[in-house]
Amino acid sequence: MKIDHIGIVVQNLEAALRVYETALGLPLAEIAEVDDQKVRVAFLPVGESNIELVQPTSGETGIARYLEKRGEGIHHICLEVEAIEEALARLKAHRVPLIDEEPRPGAHGRVAFIHPKGMHGVLIELVEYDRS
Amino acid sequence: MKIDHIGIVVQNLEAALRVYETALGLPLAEIAEVDDQKVRVAFLPVGESNIELVQPTSGETGIARYLEKRGEGIHHICLEVEAIEEALARLKAHRVPLIDEEPRPGAHGRVAFIHPKGMHGVLIELVEYDRS
Repeated sequence: MKIDHIGIVVQNLEAALRVYETALGLPLAEIAEVDDQKVRVAFLPVGESNIELVQPTSGETGIARYLEKRGEGIHHICLEVEAIEEALARLKAHRVPLIDEEPRPGAHGRVAFIHPKGMHGVLIELVEYDRS
Repeated sequence: MKIDHIGIVVQNLEAALRVYETALGLPLAEIAEVDDQKVRVAFLPVGESNIELVQPTSGETGIARYLEKRGEGIHHICLEVEAIEEALARLKAHRVPLIDEEPRPGAHGRVAFIHPKGMHGVLIELVEYDRS
């Protein structure tokens, strides 16, 4: 397992990049508009992980409501796993509440979210990357 | 740079370990009592990083007040840097507010905290490990 990325929700991607890229010195790998999730994201590699800055582009999404309610900050941690079904089965066996009972397609593999109420306040995403 | 650890503040270390170690399957490397910070911590390695679970053992500390006010969840991200003075100088040049203007001794190197108001809501710790 490794930390794939840490998702940070921000009001304005360019303002956040002035701090994370320019002042902190992280490299900027990519900026992308993800239309179906109504967000703009910036990926900044740090070791084997990424800092992912996320700016909602619509007020209607879950992450936009999170930003409105809680303000800017860390939204989730994504952990890469070898076998996502096994990981979910183990969590279910220990009665940890899941947002996704089954893996669903993500951008580069299959993903599932664990509910923060089971993880002591932390929203955790699991990802298993396609091996092909 | 790499993510050294993610610090998660919890009410009860054993309850949190039942989820992060037993249900999620992260290995437990160490449990330590840090008397001068009035916390108990558990380190769970994940790739090149660690999840650090932190339980306050006194109500008087900053992290205890954070827990009382905000509830359980992610408290800070720690990034390992090669040269902490250079990193702080760069942040100062861009007028990012710092909690520690100069590095101070940590457990295994020198550390400094950046103020979350400058980092879009994220408390970031920098660490430069001793090379000796």
